[in-house]
Amino acid sequence: MKQRYVTVLCFSVLLPIILTGQTVNAQPANSIQILNLMPLPQSITTDTGILVIDARFYAGFDGTHDSRLNAALDRLLHRLDRECGGIRRAQYEGGASAANVLLLKVAGPGGVVQGVDEDESYSLTITAQLAVLDAATDVGAIHGMETFLQLITTSNGECHLPAVTINDAPRFPWRGFMLDVSRHFEPVDVIKRTIDGMAIAKLNVFHWHLSDDQGFRAESKKFPRFTEAASGGMFYTQDQMREVVAYARARGIRVVPEFDMPGHTSSWLLAYPEIGAGEDIRALPTVFGIPQAELDPSNEKTFKFLDTFVGEMSEIFPDAYFHIGGDETAGKGWIENPRIAEFMKKQSLKTPADLQAYFNRRLLPILAKHGKKMMGWDEILNPELPRDIVIQSWRGEASLSQSAEQGFTGILSAPYYLDAQKTSAEMYLADPVPANTKLTADQQKLILGGEVCMWAEQIDPETVDSRVWPRTLAIAERFWSAQSDRNVEDMYRRLRVASLELEDAGLTHISGPERLRRNLWGSANPEVLEVMASVVEPVSFSDRYQGQHTDALSSLDRLVDAVVPDPPARVEIAREVNEVLAHPDSDDATAAELELRGRFAAWQRVSPELEAAALRSPRLSDLEMMAKQLGALGTMGLEALADLHLRTRAQAGWKDAQIATIEAAGKPSGLVRFVFLPAMRKLVEAAAMAPN
Amino acid sequence: MKQRYVTVLCFSVLLPIILTGQTVNAQPANSIQILNLMPLPQSITTDTGILVIDARFYAGFDGTHDSRLNAALDRLLHRLDRECGGIRRAQYEGGASAANVLLLKVAGPGGVVQGVDEDESYSLTITAQLAVLDAATDVGAIHGMETFLQLITTSNGECHLPAVTINDAPRFPWRGFMLDVSRHFEPVDVIKRTIDGMAIAKLNVFHWHLSDDQGFRAESKKFPRFTEAASGGMFYTQDQMREVVAYARARGIRVVPEFDMPGHTSSWLLAYPEIGAGEDIRALPTVFGIPQAELDPSNEKTFKFLDTFVGEMSEIFPDAYFHIGGDETAGKGWIENPRIAEFMKKQSLKTPADLQAYFNRRLLPILAKHGKKMMGWDEILNPELPRDIVIQSWRGEASLSQSAEQGFTGILSAPYYLDAQKTSAEMYLADPVPANTKLTADQQKLILGGEVCMWAEQIDPETVDSRVWPRTLAIAERFWSAQSDRNVEDMYRRLRVASLELEDAGLTHISGPERLRRNLWGSANPEVLEVMASVVEPVSFSDRYQGQHTDALSSLDRLVDAVVPDPPARVEIAREVNEVLAHPDSDDATAAELELRGRFAAWQRVSPELEAAALRSPRLSDLEMMAKQLGALGTMGLEALADLHLRTRAQAGWKDAQIATIEAAGKPSGLVRFVFLPAMRKLVEAAAMAPN
Repeated sequence: MKQRYVTVLCFSVLLPIILTGQTVNAQPANSIQILNLMPLPQSITTDTGILVIDARFYAGFDGTHDSRLNAALDRLLHRLDRECGGIRRAQYEGGASAANVLLLKVAGPGGVVQGVDEDESYSLTITAQLAVLDAATDVGAIHGMETFLQLITTSNGECHLPAVTINDAPRFPWRGFMLDVSRHFEPVDVIKRTIDGMAIAKLNVFHWHLSDDQGFRAESKKFPRFTEAASGGMFYTQDQMREVVAYARARGIRVVPEFDMPGHTSSWLLAYPEIGAGEDIRALPTVFGIPQAELDPSNEKTFKFLDTFVGEMSEIFPDAYFHIGGDETAGKGWIENPRIAEFMKKQSLKTPADLQAYFNRRLLPILAKHGKKMMGWDEILNPELPRDIVIQSWRGEASLSQSAEQGFTGILSAPYYLDAQKTSAEMYLADPVPANTKLTADQQKLILGGEVCMWAEQIDPETVDSRVWPRTLAIAERFWSAQSDRNVEDMYRRLRVASLELEDAGLTHISGPERLRRNLWGSANPEVLEVMASVVEPVSFSDRYQGQHTDALSSLDRLVDAVVPDPPARVEIAREVNEVLAHPDSDDATAAELELRGRFAAWQRVSPELEAAALRSPRLSDLEMMAKQLGALGTMGLEALADLHLRTRAQAGWKDAQIATIEAAGKPSGLVRFVFLPAMRKLVEAAAMAPN
Repeated sequence: MKQRYVTVLCFSVLLPIILTGQTVNAQPANSIQILNLMPLPQSITTDTGILVIDARFYAGFDGTHDSRLNAALDRLLHRLDRECGGIRRAQYEGGASAANVLLLKVAGPGGVVQGVDEDESYSLTITAQLAVLDAATDVGAIHGMETFLQLITTSNGECHLPAVTINDAPRFPWRGFMLDVSRHFEPVDVIKRTIDGMAIAKLNVFHWHLSDDQGFRAESKKFPRFTEAASGGMFYTQDQMREVVAYARARGIRVVPEFDMPGHTSSWLLAYPEIGAGEDIRALPTVFGIPQAELDPSNEKTFKFLDTFVGEMSEIFPDAYFHIGGDETAGKGWIENPRIAEFMKKQSLKTPADLQAYFNRRLLPILAKHGKKMMGWDEILNPELPRDIVIQSWRGEASLSQSAEQGFTGILSAPYYLDAQKTSAEMYLADPVPANTKLTADQQKLILGGEVCMWAEQIDPETVDSRVWPRTLAIAERFWSAQSDRNVEDMYRRLRVASLELEDAGLTHISGPERLRRNLWGSANPEVLEVMASVVEPVSFSDRYQGQHTDALSSLDRLVDAVVPDPPARVEIAREVNEVLAHPDSDDATAAELELRGRFAAWQRVSPELEAAALRSPRLSDLEMMAKQLGALGTMGLEALADLHLRTRAQAGWKDAQIATIEAAGKPSGLVRFVFLPAMRKLVEAAAMAPN
């Protein structure tokens, strides 16, 4: 029999494990762990029974709908057909005795331009007879459709969904993903599949970093030299940008364009030196970093230019916000230019930061004239700016808290820089408003959410997906789900499932690196390389930047590009080691030990072949040191397991030798690093302590 | 010491095996089998020594060069850098004491518009000191660069090339690849990577089938409704078509556009019914086949329209030829239209074929006015047309021979229809001018070559590569290399290497299907499915068309789309069986037997899991029958090997039972078929005959 409980949104205590009839928030309880939802909804009530999706199944609207919602339902049915077969189109257009149907009840389309205050909530009720998706807006319904698809499982040649009631809404209204397309360009296809991934992750802001020193990527008809002189031919036409905006809107996603100024503007000044502070830019810089190139705030022409440009871009990007960048403007060029120095004196602007604040104050009415609010990085924070600008914090939580204390709205990005190559777990646990925040309730409301950031110095169209996904899903859950949802193990379990869903939707984060590895290895079956690749990850942006000064011309097709951040083996090996150590006598430990033994033996086995390949081929030379170390680590693991298993104490000096090997292996080589060393250390230490 | 032999172009006897100092044509000799060239050059002289590619290596021009050749060298250096590291740009600009250098000596750029008579020959001489690439034209040099790259091997952490002298030129001047982009559209990215593959294969004509019933894909500014009404938004802008023409020219490839008329014109008539024979076309047909839709040859408006249209397209496509299609015009609409019937009577045109000939005669001066020669399918053949039109034969060699006998130039396509899913071997051995041809020498010269054809009813951007590659390489070798190069085993050996080169160059014929299989299987490691996928291939176009009436809306993401034609296992299993049977006591046989045993055991092992998956998931339901059969075939193989190995006679009735199983397994199921059944039958028959 069906039971309902009152939904507890901010629930944070473990509920007893009951398989059905249980309302919980998203905290770990086995009743939820059988589902694979990501991000976790605010509440789920499970019930007995399943809704079968077979040839009789259809879908339609109970009430009116607009073309956006109709297209969204078509996409849902296409995906359903792919998974389950035999389903083609919505047929339902009303009726009382509904069965075998997904009914959409949507009150209205929502904002003509989607706003920060869009109602994104939905509820989804599935019984053995039908599924009902209720939402106030198209955007809520679009989120609910993703949840519906994630509930599908198959058995007996049929698709079905469990009987559940889900009530859901996002914790934060601003759940963004920033993509830099200046350092390396990404074609429209990549943008679209990124937006597809965002829709699955229930993210709602695509922040498009369209200009930077290395290239200006947005076509301007008023200022054609931007792309003629400063894009290397790689830019988006106005039609393409409109297409992306429409594509995003169809998926409940806003597009916020960023044109970074007054610094990071080499590309601007290559095209239009007349609005610059005087630096002589002859070419797009190929070396990354912060070149000296600033707009000239002392020149009225600059603001006239920006007025025209912002006006033109505002026609293309309907969002309420316009991101002006504003980061990392050292202002050296300002100080060095006597005319600008004189201007600063006259205006009583003591520092470049003061001049930048002046620049922003002048920009503000220009944005307002074109219907836009200002958004920018930490550096734009200035008491003289209105409080409804959005501060995007790349400096961290403390910086964001300070801006909230001053009454500014803001979003957090610092912990979500994907090129830092942190684990999904680490980014998942970083919270825009952590439980221990010192902000008042009103100040907390000023934190609108966060944005994942993908800077593009070290990515290209072939590698972008594997840097972005699946880790971005974990962060997206942080932005959507309850603060108390912090079960890392369950997050990883669901991440594995959602990751496959993303590949199926067109992302290439699994297949892309596989392809690169095949090309590196030069054989149809790079099985040997796979063993290595599964246990290493790229070093961080800064380690790579220092280790190999990759510039804009380097091809990104080495081992580091062909391996993925936070590969599943990290979590798996840690779990296996924990099981072996925690329950030495149980069956679980036996299974885990067998797994580990298989891994270690494989490392031993492939090590000589990897080393030989590294010595033979220049393209694989990055592998050499790691190949040797992998073999030694495999031997170490087998010895440790044997010691544990036989309950013998390892020989004197064994432990110290192993720890030294582990520490040596901890230094990255070939721009990659092993992901299992803490677990190996734990295993070695336990083995060294094993009783006689 | 270096030795040279006179090149023997039409050599067809096996040479004694000498590792160096040997001039041979491309027939199998071990001296060549250590190289991985594809297509085989006309002659190779090998020598001792290697040219090392290291940081000192550079490249440049000895003499002048144009920007096309400069860009080609840049691409070569990029690929060289990727493979060998440390190489960036051409530095050499003349000098006497050349060493560690690739010198390009190119007499001139070749035709402003590349013609059928372009000199594509080159010679490449590599010594331990330097490599010299000599060519009369850019196109010859571009071909030579591909050969240069294919000669690279690695050892001791270095890249190097063997000392060789290669003199090379194509056997046929017209080596084409036709892509239908009407039935399913292919984005520009796919077109470009296809052209990249063609360049590696030394193909030189990209035949772009731009219109058909299911869509009109070329933007016309004179007739905008073509793409507004009849492309579903999927078309190439004029800029994109120009971009493709330039991209192809940069790689020594001509672009011949095809606008199929007067039949296959549903898309034309949806946009411009006024030039049609009266059929009422309301939408693009989603069902494939030959809908009734013809242009009206009795209407002078039609020719005025075509004059304007051909003129516009001629501005975009500079090639001397304009393909008018002309196939499969039943002319039912002509006969049914009283006005056209009356016109035919008046003009003494008895049959629709006569009216089509009239149409073509009228088209001819229109093409000539815009500087174009006519090209079309078999059906355009008519004694009243000039002899320099090109007849493309989809009907076969006999039809092509007849046209040559009548003095028409022609090319062969019938044996090279990729969607017939024939093996590389079968297509490789089909020759536009077979050794036993009855044509005179002069008539033979009229056969300009051939074209591979990729029709698009059953492909989309995700699957096109695996249908085209690597099989097209085998056909390309037929078009380029000597008639006598017919060693299938060596072709397959080189095909495996070249196939990886194609993936490395951006094609996705290996990684694409892998990705589809992962998505089908729904797990990160579809190892179980891989065992099955490696031994099945798609059924032919017509079997699929009948078995599952795929229309333009079907998604192409089932098992049949995720497996590749002529997978390597077919040849491998056949070879292993032959080795076991031919040399039962040798080491080779033991190795082959172990391989086979491993395969058969894997089939047994995965069969239950595949069957369970097929029963569970609708998306995998195609697998069910094949899963069962695979297990039975694995058991059969193991039993046959055991019988052979133990020299026991199989039990009475065993053989008949096995043959029945093999025959049952020969019926495709789920639109795929096993590729190893002839070898299995051979093995079973041998086992049944094994002595007691």
